[in-house]
Amino acid sequence: MIEHWGAGGPQTGRMADTYLPALRWAEDEDGPAVVLLDQRRLPAEERELVCAAVPALVEAIQSLTVRGAPVLGLAGAYGVALAAARGADVEAAARSLAGARPTAVNLGYGVWQALGAYRVARGGRPEAARAALARARELHRADAEASDLMAAHGHELLAAEGGGPPSGGWRVLTHCNTGALVSGGGGTAFAVVRSLHRAGELRRLWVDETRPLLQGARLTAYEAGREGMPYAVLADAAAGSLFAAGEVDAVLIGADRIAADGSVANKVGSYPLAVLARHHRVPFIVVAPVSTVDLDTEDGSGIEIEQRPGHEVTGVTGAGRMAPAEAEAYNPAFDVTPPELVTAVVTEEGAVAPVNRENLRSMCSRPLSMKSRSGNGMMKV
Amino acid sequence: MIEHWGAGGPQTGRMADTYLPALRWAEDEDGPAVVLLDQRRLPAEERELVCAAVPALVEAIQSLTVRGAPVLGLAGAYGVALAAARGADVEAAARSLAGARPTAVNLGYGVWQALGAYRVARGGRPEAARAALARARELHRADAEASDLMAAHGHELLAAEGGGPPSGGWRVLTHCNTGALVSGGGGTAFAVVRSLHRAGELRRLWVDETRPLLQGARLTAYEAGREGMPYAVLADAAAGSLFAAGEVDAVLIGADRIAADGSVANKVGSYPLAVLARHHRVPFIVVAPVSTVDLDTEDGSGIEIEQRPGHEVTGVTGAGRMAPAEAEAYNPAFDVTPPELVTAVVTEEGAVAPVNRENLRSMCSRPLSMKSRSGNGMMKV
Repeated sequence: MIEHWGAGGPQTGRMADTYLPALRWAEDEDGPAVVLLDQRRLPAEERELVCAAVPALVEAIQSLTVRGAPVLGLAGAYGVALAAARGADVEAAARSLAGARPTAVNLGYGVWQALGAYRVARGGRPEAARAALARARELHRADAEASDLMAAHGHELLAAEGGGPPSGGWRVLTHCNTGALVSGGGGTAFAVVRSLHRAGELRRLWVDETRPLLQGARLTAYEAGREGMPYAVLADAAAGSLFAAGEVDAVLIGADRIAADGSVANKVGSYPLAVLARHHRVPFIVVAPVSTVDLDTEDGSGIEIEQRPGHEVTGVTGAGRMAPAEAEAYNPAFDVTPPELVTAVVTEEGAVAPVNRENLRSMCSRPLSMKSRSGNGMMKV
Repeated sequence: MIEHWGAGGPQTGRMADTYLPALRWAEDEDGPAVVLLDQRRLPAEERELVCAAVPALVEAIQSLTVRGAPVLGLAGAYGVALAAARGADVEAAARSLAGARPTAVNLGYGVWQALGAYRVARGGRPEAARAALARARELHRADAEASDLMAAHGHELLAAEGGGPPSGGWRVLTHCNTGALVSGGGGTAFAVVRSLHRAGELRRLWVDETRPLLQGARLTAYEAGREGMPYAVLADAAAGSLFAAGEVDAVLIGADRIAADGSVANKVGSYPLAVLARHHRVPFIVVAPVSTVDLDTEDGSGIEIEQRPGHEVTGVTGAGRMAPAEAEAYNPAFDVTPPELVTAVVTEEGAVAPVNRENLRSMCSRPLSMKSRSGNGMMKV
């Protein structure tokens, strides 16, 4: 079912019997729209949500209908293109989109990329709208290419780390969801896992359920199942038992923002895994596109951590309240892992290790020689 | 509502408007019974379950209607008394009760205490049944006294650790549920927290929700709310953020079994807290009665860890399935924390630190001088 929100209010339509993309641009008789796979309903139901106006898209971002750092960048860029195509106030739409969630740097990056293209386009408003859309599509294409490169670089790094796959293959622990649902392509950390799996080198994917919103149990398990991977879901707090039993060969996670010193903001629960990985001498590898690196944020203390509503913790979506009615909650959406606990950061440019200010800056300032950088237009705005 | 299972099948009755005990012995027109507060229904509903026969009690233990190491010991002892009073096969009932859950040593301890009293009693079967019940009641009384002593010793230990309460009071992180619901008295770790609170020295109790069964969000929050404590519930994986922010002054947890070397088996998720506490130099304190120490288990590798059904992880009780239908799960009920990560073990006999084989053995072999030991009958069987 497709649900249609925005200019015309909710509508529904038929769902294609294919692997739905996390986000796509649509132009039909109702005009241009950003169409999202509603991730809140997965894995029970594959339903698309049609956002025909920016406020609906902003609400979809805030409600986590669409989530994950790379695809949020695309949502931001297409959102600007949508405002332009619909004749809305593009500058106001850009501000609203960029502020929809505070931690993911990619969101603002995508917004400003499309806005830059819109602003500098010659000709009238239609030309500017086309330029914004073209920029969003370039980012989308670049994102897909970046996924492939991250998968390859991550796979190479693991091969080098371990001197080849462990006997029986890799047992990888991951947290949250970092696959095709978060990306214009195959994803970040999950793309590396997919590469291992397709090479016959994945023994087991351990999937942290990722409370409070269960992106692991719902979304990563959904993607792992579709790929035919051997996987198992666990309560986040059970990861310690796996480390203690020697059942984890590597931790692979994504990132929502990487500060200039290499501090990594990612889904809450990443930092405890980093501490456990260090305690057990297991590699802790962060996979994220270069656009996640924010050289303007000096270190972890400068990363704003989104605090989400307490009811996500005191209850379970779909199940209502578990804790007493008056219970307070502490519900940070992300945590920050300091660079000294990160074995490597893998981007489409390659692997950075050790993770420090100099190596990150050097990676970010490489000439735009890689295919994946050709479309991101960093130098054009 | 009281639900009545066992000899007569389910029945319901009125709930008293008081703080219901986790477990009590009842004798009314239906004959003797073990009455449990149904912990699966808390905090939404306070309902008692009447077990008039041992199979119903065994099922209640396995379904976690009653759970928590100390009170499981009482359930075992009263269960033997119940079999004796009802004229059932007492030896078979004892075996069935002792094997109901594998990790908690207290369960077997309580069973064998009551069985010992039953076996050695002079006179006929009624006298033996009375002896078993008397032993169960002794254990119950001793358990309540042990709670008070653990609370006092734990409070003293913290005062000594910190050189008095931190400015503004203690911020204590706890996991699972260790209060009046797990005990014949005030509990174990939670009893220490209650002592701090009543002394005006508790700034905040951080309550790990404790997936998969949410004993923290449901039960500890329920008890903390009844006590008027300042508390907040968090996703287990968010504890790392609290440590990193300097928001935890001490971790206090219970134990299901402590091996001779000081390895502590407790609710899954305890070990990651111990690793985090060590990384952040925060005291990690285990509070448990002496009966939790199992000198016959050499070390952590000898502790059998109960593996529970996967659906507890792939779904949420009351909400159904979250993960895809075919998802496998890894669901150990407990984990093991090695002694080098445990700052101290607090029992009714006092605090043991450093935690090692010699100090534990010495604590366990002290003369039965303490009031709390007088009733446990260790030397009588």
